Amino acid sequence: MNQNRTPILLSSLQNPNVKDIIHLRERHERDRTGTFIIEGYREILRATDANWKINAIFVCPELFLGTNEPALIQRINARGAQQYTCTQKVFEKISYRDRPDGVIAIATQKKMGLSDLDYIFKTGKPPLLVVAEAIEKPGNLGTILRSSDAVGVDALIVCDRCTDIYNPNVVRASVGTLFTVPTVEAKGEETLEWLKKHGVYILAATPQADKEFTEVDVSGPVAIAVGTEQLGLSKRWMEQAHLQVSIPMNGVADSLNVAMATTLLLYEAHRQRKKTNKKI
Amino acid sequence: MNQNRTPILLSSLQNPNVKDIIHLRERHERDRTGTFIIEGYREILRATDANWKINAIFVCPELFLGTNEPALIQRINARGAQQYTCTQKVFEKISYRDRPDGVIAIATQKKMGLSDLDYIFKTGKPPLLVVAEAIEKPGNLGTILRSSDAVGVDALIVCDRCTDIYNPNVVRASVGTLFTVPTVEAKGEETLEWLKKHGVYILAATPQADKEFTEVDVSGPVAIAVGTEQLGLSKRWMEQAHLQVSIPMNGVADSLNVAMATTLLLYEAHRQRKKTNKKI
Repeated sequence: MNQNRTPILLSSLQNPNVKDIIHLRERHERDRTGTFIIEGYREILRATDANWKINAIFVCPELFLGTNEPALIQRINARGAQQYTCTQKVFEKISYRDRPDGVIAIATQKKMGLSDLDYIFKTGKPPLLVVAEAIEKPGNLGTILRSSDAVGVDALIVCDRCTDIYNPNVVRASVGTLFTVPTVEAKGEETLEWLKKHGVYILAATPQADKEFTEVDVSGPVAIAVGTEQLGLSKRWMEQAHLQVSIPMNGVADSLNVAMATTLLLYEAHRQRKKTNKKI
Repeated sequence: MNQNRTPILLSSLQNPNVKDIIHLRERHERDRTGTFIIEGYREILRATDANWKINAIFVCPELFLGTNEPALIQRINARGAQQYTCTQKVFEKISYRDRPDGVIAIATQKKMGLSDLDYIFKTGKPPLLVVAEAIEKPGNLGTILRSSDAVGVDALIVCDRCTDIYNPNVVRASVGTLFTVPTVEAKGEETLEWLKKHGVYILAATPQADKEFTEVDVSGPVAIAVGTEQLGLSKRWMEQAHLQVSIPMNGVADSLNVAMATTLLLYEAHRQRKKTNKKI
């Protein structure tokens, strides 16, 4: 059992701890330290509930929106995190939000590989996976996590990343679901091999497909593969896809936003699985 | 037939035309002038194809990404717009984007009311409408437009607006579908009456509903009503809703982003309508 450490007061914008947390907005600093920022009560609560390691917690009681913050901070402190109590000026400087709610944490990244997901194939249920290839916008990756959480996907695999999953805007857009959806960063090649080894079908959406996404059986072991905002899925993934489906586009625009498309495909898989389970 | 007007060269950041277009980023200036900004080749093309009135076009040939821009500019000029040819420095100042593509237009807003949508009820097909109540984020409104275009909704009604539909970020997030999806701003009260008068059912999503959104018949005349990002649909709308459905949430988060939820409900309506049509 860890012992509570004495809180440190931060009142100067020049304090090295203030600079350190601001530097974590940059990817190279996250990569170098293996840590990242979690801002907001709800997000930190979800990380704590899911047993992520929190190293430091920055608090500003004047900005708390509710009454549950002290209990959460106490839980985090009891696990050995260092508390920094900030003046409002300092907190607003380190906050990433327009309306900060008085809590920001620094946590340790989880370094998981594909082999850490092998347990998924031992549950006896057909797995539902998402492969997100080279997504650029953190908001899209966060939204894909949020939908993945909602339908209960077994894992998100971020392939050939452009945006790292610990980008503060991913954490924010995910509303903390990054901490509950098993998420792995991996190379495209190894992911394809891993899916093949485990007999997982790859589903890709493309305007060229004959069948609509609601007309194809996705109740088995499936990985929904989606690609970049600009170009969609790469040729490599498209060629390896066992199932190709289209999403109806009846208007002037030729595609949906990638997070929208993923959400539609995920809920269709959910609908079909529910139906299948009912039959049994 | 209008005659082409002589293009005006803009090379000074102090030019009043430069200041005017920048002021249109502010809502009060859009409200005052009844005009708004359309940026980007694709967006301006969609507005032109849909016969929106373009008053001025600002161009910077050095920034063109393709070869079709001159033809579009000529079409717009032939309809009597004033062309401003900008230096790159001026264009980058007036552009709203990170990577400007050399065309920005000022267009006239359409002032449509609910009665302008009455034609929808004369087509003989059950209408599919979206009511977006008090949405705050322009990106969400734009995305709702994009999905509305994709499934071919008959109209979007923006009730008790927080964000005006001519906000540049709505135009951008809509990828120009604002110009093809009939869109009306109206008060909640009058919208409810208008829907009632025309026998349109109101569908609302709420976590409390017993039935999932895929289990309820939405093939008839339906308005999908969605509310603010923070609080969802207001009590007034929720009470008036004939159909209440839930969107399954199996994870830690308690709701989807409003644009995601709308997209799911729209595509479910589309799926059911397609099936119904097949039967006939």
